[in-house]
Amino acid sequence: MDRVFQALGDPARRKMIDRLSRGPASVSELARPFDMTLAAVVQHVQVLEQSGVITTEKIGRVRTCRLEPRGLSAAERWISKRRATWERRFDRLEALLEETEEPTPPKKGSKES
Amino acid sequence: MDRVFQALGDPARRKMIDRLSRGPASVSELARPFDMTLAAVVQHVQVLEQSGVITTEKIGRVRTCRLEPRGLSAAERWISKRRATWERRFDRLEALLEETEEPTPPKKGSKES
Repeated sequence: MDRVFQALGDPARRKMIDRLSRGPASVSELARPFDMTLAAVVQHVQVLEQSGVITTEKIGRVRTCRLEPRGLSAAERWISKRRATWERRFDRLEALLEETEEPTPPKKGSKES
Repeated sequence: MDRVFQALGDPARRKMIDRLSRGPASVSELARPFDMTLAAVVQHVQVLEQSGVITTEKIGRVRTCRLEPRGLSAAERWISKRRATWERRFDRLEALLEETEEPTPPKKGSKES
């Protein structure tokens, strides 16, 4: 999980994921929009592959990169679980407030107290 | 967005987010489960705060940390958008395959071809 989030923590790598979400691409296709050496691109591709967010396959001289959605899903689930816990907490607090408020009918001037 | 994912790319910080998803906590409460100096914990808290994933408030000598769900939501949305694009691509490919297959009725032995 560390590796997935670390892979996502770089704008160039996120741009590569963005490209790959629209379909597989060779390393040189991935490199095209960047003002970066091919060696730097290859390094980013390796970080993405090691994190499990993409897979690559070399056929002849061309390495094709593909998004591996299970890597992204794991990260997405980790976040959404924490957000859900946090939201449930608020629902409980709200319910508790309603319960506490119900028995005592509103008094005159209670707004100012 | 870089900072959010970088903040999430550390197991100690994810554990802190986990704790804060269940409610606010002071820095010393956050430090409790870790075998770490308070200075190291404070540094992690700063990374989390600078990323926008948590907010902190100092009252007297106690700094209270709170989850800021908008930070997490942004990261979650970034991921789910790419996953959705990727899934739509597959839906389109499937539809295209169905269209291509329909006009030609299955032939004997076509499985082997």
